[in-house]
Amino acid sequence: MADLARPYLLFIGDVQDDLAAKTAAGIVDWRRDWCLGQLRLPGCKADLGLPDLDIAAAAAQGARTMIVGVANAGGVMPDHWVATIVAALDAGMDVASGLHTRLGAIPAIADAAARSGRTLTDVRHPMQSFATGKGTRRAGKRVLTVGTDCSVGKKYTALAIERELRLRGHDADFRATGQTGIFISGRGVAVDAVVADFIAGAAEWLSPAAEPDHWDVVEGQGSLFHPSFAGVSLGLLHGSQPDAIVLCHEPTRAAMRGVPAPLPDLQACIELNLACGRLTNPAVVCVGLSVNTSKLMRAAARDYLARLGERMGMPAVDPIAYGVGPLVDNLLKLVP
Amino acid sequence: MADLARPYLLFIGDVQDDLAAKTAAGIVDWRRDWCLGQLRLPGCKADLGLPDLDIAAAAAQGARTMIVGVANAGGVMPDHWVATIVAALDAGMDVASGLHTRLGAIPAIADAAARSGRTLTDVRHPMQSFATGKGTRRAGKRVLTVGTDCSVGKKYTALAIERELRLRGHDADFRATGQTGIFISGRGVAVDAVVADFIAGAAEWLSPAAEPDHWDVVEGQGSLFHPSFAGVSLGLLHGSQPDAIVLCHEPTRAAMRGVPAPLPDLQACIELNLACGRLTNPAVVCVGLSVNTSKLMRAAARDYLARLGERMGMPAVDPIAYGVGPLVDNLLKLVP
Repeated sequence: MADLARPYLLFIGDVQDDLAAKTAAGIVDWRRDWCLGQLRLPGCKADLGLPDLDIAAAAAQGARTMIVGVANAGGVMPDHWVATIVAALDAGMDVASGLHTRLGAIPAIADAAARSGRTLTDVRHPMQSFATGKGTRRAGKRVLTVGTDCSVGKKYTALAIERELRLRGHDADFRATGQTGIFISGRGVAVDAVVADFIAGAAEWLSPAAEPDHWDVVEGQGSLFHPSFAGVSLGLLHGSQPDAIVLCHEPTRAAMRGVPAPLPDLQACIELNLACGRLTNPAVVCVGLSVNTSKLMRAAARDYLARLGERMGMPAVDPIAYGVGPLVDNLLKLVP
Repeated sequence: MADLARPYLLFIGDVQDDLAAKTAAGIVDWRRDWCLGQLRLPGCKADLGLPDLDIAAAAAQGARTMIVGVANAGGVMPDHWVATIVAALDAGMDVASGLHTRLGAIPAIADAAARSGRTLTDVRHPMQSFATGKGTRRAGKRVLTVGTDCSVGKKYTALAIERELRLRGHDADFRATGQTGIFISGRGVAVDAVVADFIAGAAEWLSPAAEPDHWDVVEGQGSLFHPSFAGVSLGLLHGSQPDAIVLCHEPTRAAMRGVPAPLPDLQACIELNLACGRLTNPAVVCVGLSVNTSKLMRAAARDYLARLGERMGMPAVDPIAYGVGPLVDNLLKLVP
């Protein structure tokens, strides 16, 4: 896919809570300066904290892409949202969606895109075909966030590492593997939607050969210990051939997301990721732990991180609460 | 997909060598009694050893499905094969193909299927959608063939185990995960063509809950050590939740198929498969090794198998040359 044109107008329809707008909220968290405003329909109960703009105002301010930034049940486009999308196209904006429903499958939207010459992008659906993975080493450096489970902070950790590396003057690019990440970086591939034979190949495409000092910070997906999605995680690990991994974890979770299985032991999770990662990068190391402590009290969180870091012998950070500084210190020390 | 209707007429076009007809040859190897004959075009250089039948003769003998049983470069349908496929449909046969080109994408074939009311099946393309994997334990017994590499005999080993189990009076079903296997069993799913998020779910669909004494013998794909396809292998391992695995190997291969990577150590390969397999079946065991010794001299093959079995502490067999008896003995002993 071509990069999504910026700035964005974030459309969240009339969703009934902030959770349904979390895709858009993620864009605001990480790319506030790309966002001109939000467009909400009557009855919307979410608020991104951006100026409310209608289509005409957004177009007048130069919005280039309207992002359908919601994650509603089933991923289906409500009928009463279509007119707004058509209006955005007719006003000269591209439209990009994270819903399962393809924009172009809705005739009024397809017609509007054709007559306006604008681009429709469905970020859940890969827009290109891939070769199978080759497994050969590529120039450049790569770090991959892996997890004990789904939804434990792999995307936010990768984005925080990208930001910290850039602050320190390193050339670094976040590489998005899911819908929200694609909106945040303007490009990427939803690896869970790739045909199974091409998972590793898609990951190779996503983090191509680069300058020796360039860092790709690859957003992980799922977990090698998740019985639904481990195949995606393994293909992504092999294809991204990381020099370093960071293990992401949520310490209050009682069971794997969506299935009645226990969370893996952290050491076992690191060891399996390293054992599998060595297939395409024999030098892969684990440089730290990234923990979402948002459900712990502040003192308990600090204590947990300190004990965990000591026990595992590597930095343990909460990327949102305390930043990833110690983790990036260790990354740069172990992968010089 | 519904089961493919039998008997079959095997169409191999005008392929230029036996290798290009290996899909059809696999059907003949394992389901000779399902095959009425072969249909070859002028200039065909392969021979399945079946009676040559034209469309009219095959229809008169009751052929229900014409199988396009070739694996040519690129998986594309040659234009001059289309008339034969149209004639088969008009004569009342269904048509099933293992080519990448979808039968229905060729207008003359789509038209013929519509007017005759016959079914087109593209076994490389999943015909149904799947749920994501759940990882919950299902009743029934399962054995999965895993490999050090692609194309080391996982399908033939699974078929040989199915046959041996049935000969001993056990209720057993081969579960096909690739195109040739689907023709051989009349059903199945090409797991490498499933969208990545649904690999494990497809494997769960393929080997559903069954009677406690029923054996599903699941055809493995790829290898956890193949940098292109390991994600498929892992999803299949998790979804099929085997009670037992059999490791398949080709001892003369110098590098992994299609990529410049060494073959894994056999013990490491068993250990990684068991470690990952325990996620959905904590009791999983390895019951033996299945080796394709066709490139070794007979004495060397026997010697290799004897030494390997001793070193690994489990039966090592060549399923084609010597059968899988000792392996099935061990399977029934370890998974009673």
